[in-house]
Amino acid sequence: MKTYPMKLITIIGETHARTPLCRLFEEVGAHGFTVFPVEGKGSQGLRDGGMPEYANLQFEVIVQAATAELLLDRLQEAFFPSYAMVAHVTDIGVLRADKF
Amino acid sequence: MKTYPMKLITIIGETHARTPLCRLFEEVGAHGFTVFPVEGKGSQGLRDGGMPEYANLQFEVIVQAATAELLLDRLQEAFFPSYAMVAHVTDIGVLRADKF
Amino acid sequence: MKTYPMKLITIIGETHARTPLCRLFEEVGAHGFTVFPVEGKGSQGLRDGGMPEYANLQFEVIVQAATAELLLDRLQEAFFPSYAMVAHVTDIGVLRADKF
Repeated sequence: MKTYPMKLITIIGETHARTPLCRLFEEVGAHGFTVFPVEGKGSQGLRDGGMPEYANLQFEVIVQAATAELLLDRLQEAFFPSYAMVAHVTDIGVLRADKF
Repeated sequence: MKTYPMKLITIIGETHARTPLCRLFEEVGAHGFTVFPVEGKGSQGLRDGGMPEYANLQFEVIVQAATAELLLDRLQEAFFPSYAMVAHVTDIGVLRADKF
Repeated sequence: MKTYPMKLITIIGETHARTPLCRLFEEVGAHGFTVFPVEGKGSQGLRDGGMPEYANLQFEVIVQAATAELLLDRLQEAFFPSYAMVAHVTDIGVLRADKF
């Protein structure tokens, strides 16, 4: 079975980052994504001397390599200074590459 | 720690694909999977001139490489013509390979 | 965009494993994780002659390679004998490596 090498960008962020993130996905040309709620404990909580749980959203976006670069650049510049957020990238193989 | 190279197949599809997908997992010999609901925006929605959100299920199946090939082939042939669906594959290392 | 090579550890386990797992994450020095509920069918269920669905939690932990080794060792030794659990590891690239 032929698969196409692409990038899965996973972003874990505060729920109020949702609207600007969705706008960013459209701007960079991402053709689709999924989002689901997660509980998270992170280094953010350590600032208060503990590790409180809080509601987050996990976004998963499948994009071509060039779009991944652009998306990560924009996250670093425009989102990380303002939002508690983590982003990582995974190499994947995709069926139906025409959709992305 | 020894891990075993395996494949993680992730499938995002409409909720009504659930029963036939579970049947497929059994047929190809996948020994287990997880499923959870996600919101999705995809190229499917663009056909209507917008990007409406809709309810999807995200399936994650861990299989050996040969089973992954078989599963992806069957998805392409039997599911993609009929269902709005995306599938991708990731290389992973698994503990407890005897379970798969 | 510079990303840092790290490991994503995914653990699917019974809900009552949550408290000891969270304690383990802290012990090995994992700085954060997400958790969300999933339905699972696994080889565990086959022991009863069927594949019943049951409630599980999926944990995702981002750690450096050395911490991943330690975490997987501890899972194998201290958790797998007692809990129905699956763990796998994926190579990822992370922005904001200072958080982990």
